[in-house]
Amino acid sequence: MRKGLLIVVSGASGTGKGTVCKKILADLPEVAYSISATTRKPRPSEIDGKEYYFLSVDEFKAWIAEEKFLEYAEVYGNFYGTPLNKIEERLNRGEDILLEIDVQGALNVKRKCPDGVYIFLLPPSLEELKSRIEGRGTENPESLARRLKNAVAEIKIGLEYDYAVVNDTIDNAAEQIKAILTAERLKVARNAEKFDFKEGF
Amino acid sequence: MRKGLLIVVSGASGTGKGTVCKKILADLPEVAYSISATTRKPRPSEIDGKEYYFLSVDEFKAWIAEEKFLEYAEVYGNFYGTPLNKIEERLNRGEDILLEIDVQGALNVKRKCPDGVYIFLLPPSLEELKSRIEGRGTENPESLARRLKNAVAEIKIGLEYDYAVVNDTIDNAAEQIKAILTAERLKVARNAEKFDFKEGF
Repeated sequence: MRKGLLIVVSGASGTGKGTVCKKILADLPEVAYSISATTRKPRPSEIDGKEYYFLSVDEFKAWIAEEKFLEYAEVYGNFYGTPLNKIEERLNRGEDILLEIDVQGALNVKRKCPDGVYIFLLPPSLEELKSRIEGRGTENPESLARRLKNAVAEIKIGLEYDYAVVNDTIDNAAEQIKAILTAERLKVARNAEKFDFKEGF
Repeated sequence: MRKGLLIVVSGASGTGKGTVCKKILADLPEVAYSISATTRKPRPSEIDGKEYYFLSVDEFKAWIAEEKFLEYAEVYGNFYGTPLNKIEERLNRGEDILLEIDVQGALNVKRKCPDGVYIFLLPPSLEELKSRIEGRGTENPESLARRLKNAVAEIKIGLEYDYAVVNDTIDNAAEQIKAILTAERLKVARNAEKFDFKEGF
């Protein structure tokens, strides 16, 4: 049986990871989303247990102690973590699992799971990234400047990923990611059983 | 400037490489076809300089002596070769080049050009492969039996390729190959310049 794909979508803060992932999940019902945990406050539209598990710092530290995370990291003073949620078992059952992780966390997962598909979302330009972070309305001028400075550093880390997708429009980015998933499923390394023809002539 | 993709489509004799490649070239006008040379006789529909350069054995040997081939091989008593045709120059200009090569020849190219995209076409079943080779009407019973036996051996060599595409229908196979090309163009290794953001804030 084909093992599922571990699909990791990452990108600098404000690149639109969440929106693109939502579009992919809506278009590809066979892909399951693995919900991350965070100690940051929910944005107005976000629901606990849907976009994230929203935890207190104490709860998050308890999950760390109980070894519930594949990886976790502190980003801008908040904790973010990828719960294990039996990911390996689900992949072995053939389930494709999508993870949306920050740049730092995704590289930690890549070290543990090199078979995954690591996709880095790029903003069309830094100007566009700036206006997206501003438009979110959750940043004060100081944290905005800090995020933009860090975005440049984060984007360089993208060179360690497998694929680079420019998020110019959500539809374009989602289409490109869908092509990547089609191609990855066709890799010979994931399809050895297809070569097993019988010589019964 | 982005370097072009060297796209190599191969598969056991009778898998339908030629038909699938024609469909891809029709759908993707930006992809150029590199015409192979052969000493085998043209099939009724084939035109010299379109499907192949049809050469005599003496002509073929002269091309070998003049170092006009990227690779060549003898298959079923006929020579097949991939003319250089300035392939490297064209790739550096950003041109995507499609090569349709037999199993043996494609692996020779892979050794010389590991950056290429190596796609192995599989028949849906050996029964289907048999009926396709018979349907071609160019085989006597002896050569048919020989081809089928060799097909099983050739298919095992496909494990050394990058991607495995089952040619169940031409449209399905062509769509999958198009997704592979989209994904390959998005590989970080081919897009380092996209990460070159200026820190002008």
